Parts: sequence; C-alpha cells; structure tokens
Amino acid sequence: MTRDGQEELGVILYFIGTAASEGIPNPLCKCSTCQEARKFAFAQRKPPTLAVILKKGGIILFDVGSDIGEHLPGVSIRTVFLTHWHNDHTYGLYKLRWVAKKLSLYAPREGADATILNEPRNLEIQFIKAGDTIKLPPLKITALKLNHFPETLGYLLESKKKKVAILYDTKGLPEETYELLKKKKPKVALVDATYPPGVEMPTHNNVDEAAVLGLSVAEKVYLTHIAHHNLPFTKLLEYVIEKYGEKVNVAYDGMVVYV
Amino acid sequence: MTRDGQEELGVILYFIGTAASEGIPNPLCKCSTCQEARKFAFAQRKPPTLAVILKKGGIILFDVGSDIGEHLPGVSIRTVFLTHWHNDHTYGLYKLRWVAKKLSLYAPREGADATILNEPRNLEIQFIKAGDTIKLPPLKITALKLNHFPETLGYLLESKKKKVAILYDTKGLPEETYELLKKKKPKVALVDATYPPGVEMPTHNNVDEAAVLGLSVAEKVYLTHIAHHNLPFTKLLEYVIEKYGEKVNVAYDGMVVYV
Repeated sequence: MTRDGQEELGVILYFIGTAASEGIPNPLCKCSTCQEARKFAFAQRKPPTLAVILKKGGIILFDVGSDIGEHLPGVSIRTVFLTHWHNDHTYGLYKLRWVAKKLSLYAPREGADATILNEPRNLEIQFIKAGDTIKLPPLKITALKLNHFPETLGYLLESKKKKVAILYDTKGLPEETYELLKKKKPKVALVDATYPPGVEMPTHNNVDEAAVLGLSVAEKVYLTHIAHHNLPFTKLLEYVIEKYGEKVNVAYDGMVVYV
Repeated sequence: MTRDGQEELGVILYFIGTAASEGIPNPLCKCSTCQEARKFAFAQRKPPTLAVILKKGGIILFDVGSDIGEHLPGVSIRTVFLTHWHNDHTYGLYKLRWVAKKLSLYAPREGADATILNEPRNLEIQFIKAGDTIKLPPLKITALKLNHFPETLGYLLESKKKKVAILYDTKGLPEETYELLKKKKPKVALVDATYPPGVEMPTHNNVDEAAVLGLSVAEKVYLTHIAHHNLPFTKLLEYVIEKYGEKVNVAYDGMVVYV
C-alpha cells in the first residue's frame, strides 16, 4: 500500500483459455497442431478466458470463452469485461448468467448477443466504448479501440506503479491506441497472435506481428488467441524464445503470471 | 544440430505434479493454503511428476507421483527415472507398470517398493547410484547424491550447450554434488522448497534455502515439491518474485518451461 492508499498492481494473470475460435485440438482436424494437442494436454487450448486476480482477493474476468466452473471453483467474481461479442469470447456467458449473485458485465454495444441481452438473468450488462474508464480500486481500467469487428475493445489495467494491456482480438493497433500505450508504457501486453509466422490476415496478427507490436509498447509480451492454423505449441515455443528471448512468451491454458 | 551431431538441450519441462506428499488441497485440511486451492484450480498440486520433452519427440519422466494418463494421452514415454522410493514419488507406477510396451525405469536400490519389484510387469527396473551416467542422446544424465533418505538421487541433464539440474527431495546439497554443479553451471535448477520461509526441517528445504541454493549453482531456479505447510500459492508467488526477481520461479502443476 502506497502513501496515497493506492496499491501497486500486484495481480496474477490466470490464462484459462488461450485459443482462437475453434479451440485446439479442433474436432476432426488432423493438422500437426491438433495432432500434437492429442499427445500433450499442455498443448490443448480452449477459447479465450482470462482471470485477473487482485492482491486483495478480487477476480476480474476478461472474456468468458469457456465454462469457468472447474478453474475458479470457489471464488466470487467481481466484474466481467468483454472484448467483443464474437462467440468464442462469450460461450461461457450462457452458463455464467445463472451465477448466484448479480454480476456486472461491461461490453461494447455493437453485435451484442440477443440471447444474453434478452435473458441476462444475473448479469448486469453495461455498454462501454473506447476511451471509457472504469474504476475498480486499486485499478483503473481503460477501454481501448482495436482493429477488429464488430466493435472490439482492448483494456489497459493501471495502478500507481504497474500496467497491463490486453490486446486481443486485433490486427496491429489503431494510431490512438498505439500512442496511448507508448505513453503509458505497460509492463506486460497480452497480444493476439492467431496465425503462424508469414501468414498475413486482415483481422488478426501473426506471431511476428504480435511479438513486434507487443515489444513496441510493453516490456514483456504474452502471445495468446492462438489458432490451430498456428505452429504446434512445442515448435511455436521454440520459435518465439529462440527469436525474441524471454521477453516474448507463448501463453497456454493454465499459465499463471505474477505482474 | 551441431557439427558433431549433438543437439542443444532444447527441452520442454512439463511440471505435471509439484506437491510434497499430501498434495494440495490436503483432504480434510482447512489451512489457508488448502483453502486457497479450493478456490483456484491453479493452486492445486499433485505429488511430483516431471516430463522432460526432447526436441525430437522423446519423453523422459522424472518420478511418477500421479497418474499421467490425462496429461500425456498420446505419447510414448522413453524412460523413467526415480529420485527415490518414497510413495509420493511412485504412486503413478502402480498403474504405469501396465504400460503397453517395455519401459526402462532407473532408480536407486535402497527402499525399493516390494509390490513394484515383485510385479514390475512392463517396467524394466535398473538400479543406479550417485555418479552413474546414462546416455540418452542427445542427453547425458548423471545421478547426483542428495541429502534425503532412503537413498535419493538428483539428476543433471546435459547436452552440448545447456544443462538442467533436478534437485528434489533434499536439504541443501552434499559437498560433492555442490562442487559438481558449480563446475557444470546448469542453466536451470529445479529445487525442493517444501516449507515456508523460516521453517527449518532436517530433510527438506524451506523457500529461502531452496532459492539461495538454486541461485548458487544455476541461472534460473524453479521451486517445487511444495507442501501444504507452505504459503498459499498466490502469497508464495508474490514473496518469491518480490524477493528474488524473475530468476526464481514457483513451479505449479501444468507449468511449461522451454530450456
């Protein structure tokens, strides 16, 4: 606790799901990434869910791409943020809305899921847009514009001393987001690295685009939102560490990072 | 591949189990470490099993403290090494001996489990002692004397360029092992950190003993063999990173490390 009562960030990032839409292994697929995931449990990926665990016990979820029951069996979730309403980021909401207490859900408006909107049950949905800030002491959370559709938000988590940027799904960064992050200098950036090196696509980064983008704004980068189109995990890990050293990491389901 | 045909180490360490004997949560226990593990799946620990995954696809297991079926569903294990015959390091063998092909098991002789010895089924047991070296190209594996009972071995994994030392269970290191490791300079050491800071016990290290020991011989340290007597995982992670920086890490079940 600092003199003005604001803590350092002191969060744990718990990567519950780190896949793109289809998850890995993709059912029926025989590609080498999917085949590897049938050998090693650590190479299996579920769609995106990130739990940010605050020092004082609070939990904030960013996207709910999978059922979180087995991963957080005994905690009260404080708030949920959605990056956007693509299904791989929202699957888990269909079940989570039966949560035992009222729970705030912040999300962009565009493309909102009709089932969730019409029957939110215990989810209290609040629409936000890029530039909005939400205060969840000791954190300030700023929504960031990303290059993806429908309307997609990144998030900057700030406390007095440390910052984390959540940057998926996106292809590169809009100028305003890049400038903001250059100024804020987050310690850690989590970046969309959907595709393998050399593959250029319009709405997601490849591994090198993600690594370079992440390193241009943050000290340490975690690549996530990995498609089965990407390299098998063991090859991806080797590629990234041999090329970028330990400043760039490949996230995986179950990974725990202290910031 | 180097000119003389010997690869760099290029291994992935896959921590399948990172607990001491009882696992975390310990059934019926209400301590804060066990209670935390009932909240967060990442804070749950099974008894020790480590898979070392070689670049060319081979897998070597060090201890089999848990059933490995769900973690390595589709791979052929090449060889198994035991550190010693305490039950928390051997539970998984009772099932693994039904493995579909003959499988080499290297272990110290003292205290060998009668059930496994009398009915090894597909395990081919070979007794080894400190100082013995086993060649599994591209690795050379040397058995190391540790301070634990019954007769307990650490292991040094060496290739041309990188080395990994596996140092559990132990309290400190015998002089001969310390001198060997000082000379060999492993990149990574996995060290027994059973107890919380300040707790002195005769056959296992506490967290600080483990961190200091590890840093005295290796560049990077992973603390493992964590008892429920230790700090809750989130507090342990904070303690270790705040005190030692990123050179000392707390291993957890499911952790993946590229060396």
